[in-house]
Amino acid sequence: MNKKTVINNLGKIMLVEAALMLPAMLISLGYGEMSDVLGFLAAIVPSAIIGLLCTRVKGSKMSPRDGYVIVASAWIIISLIGAIPLFLSGHFSSYISALFEIVSGFTTTGASVMDEPGVLGHGVQFFRCFSHWVGGMGVLVFVLMLIPTGNDSSMHLVRAEVPGPTSGKLVPKMSQTSRILYSIYAGITLALAIILMILGMPIFDAFCYAFGTAGTGGFGITSAGITAYNSKAIEIVISIFMLMCGINFNLYYLILLGKIKEVFKAEELKVYFGIVIAAITMISFNIFSLIGNVGDTLRVSLFQVASIVTTTGFATADFTTWPEFSQHILVLLMVIGGCAGSTAGGLKVSRLLILWKSFIAEIKSIINPKQIIKVRVNKEVVSEKTLRSSRIYIAAYLIIICLSTLVISLNELDFTTNLTAVLACFNNIGPGLAKVGPMANYSVYSDWAKGLLSVIMLTGRLEIFPMFLLFAKSAHDK
Amino acid sequence: MNKKTVINNLGKIMLVEAALMLPAMLISLGYGEMSDVLGFLAAIVPSAIIGLLCTRVKGSKMSPRDGYVIVASAWIIISLIGAIPLFLSGHFSSYISALFEIVSGFTTTGASVMDEPGVLGHGVQFFRCFSHWVGGMGVLVFVLMLIPTGNDSSMHLVRAEVPGPTSGKLVPKMSQTSRILYSIYAGITLALAIILMILGMPIFDAFCYAFGTAGTGGFGITSAGITAYNSKAIEIVISIFMLMCGINFNLYYLILLGKIKEVFKAEELKVYFGIVIAAITMISFNIFSLIGNVGDTLRVSLFQVASIVTTTGFATADFTTWPEFSQHILVLLMVIGGCAGSTAGGLKVSRLLILWKSFIAEIKSIINPKQIIKVRVNKEVVSEKTLRSSRIYIAAYLIIICLSTLVISLNELDFTTNLTAVLACFNNIGPGLAKVGPMANYSVYSDWAKGLLSVIMLTGRLEIFPMFLLFAKSAHDK
Repeated sequence: MNKKTVINNLGKIMLVEAALMLPAMLISLGYGEMSDVLGFLAAIVPSAIIGLLCTRVKGSKMSPRDGYVIVASAWIIISLIGAIPLFLSGHFSSYISALFEIVSGFTTTGASVMDEPGVLGHGVQFFRCFSHWVGGMGVLVFVLMLIPTGNDSSMHLVRAEVPGPTSGKLVPKMSQTSRILYSIYAGITLALAIILMILGMPIFDAFCYAFGTAGTGGFGITSAGITAYNSKAIEIVISIFMLMCGINFNLYYLILLGKIKEVFKAEELKVYFGIVIAAITMISFNIFSLIGNVGDTLRVSLFQVASIVTTTGFATADFTTWPEFSQHILVLLMVIGGCAGSTAGGLKVSRLLILWKSFIAEIKSIINPKQIIKVRVNKEVVSEKTLRSSRIYIAAYLIIICLSTLVISLNELDFTTNLTAVLACFNNIGPGLAKVGPMANYSVYSDWAKGLLSVIMLTGRLEIFPMFLLFAKSAHDK
Repeated sequence: MNKKTVINNLGKIMLVEAALMLPAMLISLGYGEMSDVLGFLAAIVPSAIIGLLCTRVKGSKMSPRDGYVIVASAWIIISLIGAIPLFLSGHFSSYISALFEIVSGFTTTGASVMDEPGVLGHGVQFFRCFSHWVGGMGVLVFVLMLIPTGNDSSMHLVRAEVPGPTSGKLVPKMSQTSRILYSIYAGITLALAIILMILGMPIFDAFCYAFGTAGTGGFGITSAGITAYNSKAIEIVISIFMLMCGINFNLYYLILLGKIKEVFKAEELKVYFGIVIAAITMISFNIFSLIGNVGDTLRVSLFQVASIVTTTGFATADFTTWPEFSQHILVLLMVIGGCAGSTAGGLKVSRLLILWKSFIAEIKSIINPKQIIKVRVNKEVVSEKTLRSSRIYIAAYLIIICLSTLVISLNELDFTTNLTAVLACFNNIGPGLAKVGPMANYSVYSDWAKGLLSVIMLTGRLEIFPMFLLFAKSAHDK
């Protein structure tokens, strides 16, 4: 491992985070929330100084492994620093609680430990919601956009950070790719914020919810969340934008280039919408008698399905009171997640598609043992390497979910709560069922459990391998 | 597909099942339970006649796929026939309930729909418990022992029926291999029955429980189960025998040959005992305050861990009243299961070992991209084919568990009940948590749900592929 390269890159990350905190600090200043300003300074000053010192260490070539280590350490560092202003705001019972909250922000989980997030000052609230936006598309991708790095190095970082079984370049230069992606992302966010303002949302709220929607995060700025605005139009608009942000962003680039036909060829997109429509239909039939009219039933189902499948986690209804069948559908959607290359979490539709096709190929190969059967997605053969890592991913996923649920059960909550909390954190959704349902929060867990859940959120966001490579470091280093 | 070969082999199965019912019928006759005798005749006579007709169809060479189709159809047929005497006994609310009970028997699940199994006549009770014994080692393996088939054909059948990622021959001839395995199996069963009688169990009960233990089934002959004998010695003996039957039976053959050293080399065995000891230790610490003395705590933990990890499913304590941590350990053991080549269900220790080592190999290959990293178990390289099918297996497992839990939730029971019911059925354990806990039974589910759970038990026992090949038949047949 090239330690200098790692330190250099982590320095950049700290500088960027200090810069990202500035607007939030200015908001605190503007609203006269002076103690919060000091909280931000306590994070910005050391992180800028240490960051500057670290960038003085000159790095060299980056190996794929360095990429993973940098990404994992970067996410841990931005969380540790980001928790400082939250903790110093005085609204969190411990530093670990504040850490949980900001990890939940950056990983776009949206799980909260706050009974009433409305008590936070404006600057802190803004930073909390803005963390969704930065984490959604990727912190390293953001850094690459600002500070161009060698093309190979960038590729290693992006591969480690961008979710999904494969990650491609839109244009030959990686820094340009990340600029294109972030422009599309910013465009969608801005469009949403404007529409929300037109629909009557105050400007501050509109931006906070636009960040949470585009990043598929899910923090509400009050405990009432989106229902506070009492507007069906807002609910529908947010539903549509959540679904849009669960789509691979590369497809938007194709649309911009006018290659509409290629978009319609994308198998993952078809399956994604197939799942969404099937889930909405089933839930609508199932909850119709609770709600009583077709329009409201469809709106409520659309919102909840969009919120869960994209792993955003906003809630407008207490779905723990819905029939069991609907709740089970939501749990299944939690596991599935959005499309690869989107801001959504979960296993990703394309990974499941690959696994399903592998299974069919295995059955075919039993029927015709001599024939070599290839797995194809979008009519292209999936490489052995991608197949292998998708299959290993699912095994590691299962093992991690099982063991985490076991350890967290030491907190003596019930099985449904524990399992859905682990699923909701790993898949970066937010709400689970039972005691961590949409109208509850994660304060039911003790500090050590919140710490573990923070690690689970990071492991899920970075899709397992970077976190393990971080710990494999000392054992295999030569 | 060679239809004639399939029909010929299914004919053999029907003949063997008719023969297997005879002793049970004689017991009914001996106890003067005449209506049960008629029930057995109603199953034996048609199955013998149709069986004879089918064996007149001469088969030819068997393809691997034929092997899978025969195994899947055979298990369905023996269940459909085996349910007849149970249904005609008049103690089941429907044929589907009786079918669930006998599928649970053959698959060694041990889940019951009866509030009080003690009401059954002796012959029917014997057959119910005996189904565990036959299903444990495999119905087709039993047939192969009685009616030798070509060596290639036998291999295809054994590969489809014997659980675990690999299956080997002990001796060059497959029919001899199955004879050796069944002799060891019969020896263990007989030894247990004799010990139980010495410890004061009536002869009928002793054999019923010996069948259930050796087959890792788990049916109790009364609702009190093993606690009815109020004997700590019986509990301990059964615990030890359950653990013994969760070990790969090939290892007993090595012991018989005096190759003790090779037994100690088996990695799966070490991991298996490591898991058992770890689980007993953790549960003991966790439930000590409930029980109050070390001896009883250890005995109770030993029994429950042995019962769940081997997927037997006997219960001497209502573990749904235990602390959540202990319950979560038991759920994890349900997923793990016993060793490959044993009578136990679950994912199998060796499959998990392969997956874990794959994961480590994948991490190593990121660190050293140019090095080819092999996965080794027992110091031997695991073939790419085994690796691939183990990984695909786990993906298919996850998909099946998720979808089944979703469908069964239409019955409107809670999430913990549904998920653990599906896990307990697929992994052939028996009891789950909540409403299907050890002191409850599966009568809470409606008939269609029992039917689905029966299919899940069969799919789990045959490890997914045979059942799917059965349905893939028409679509891919040329």
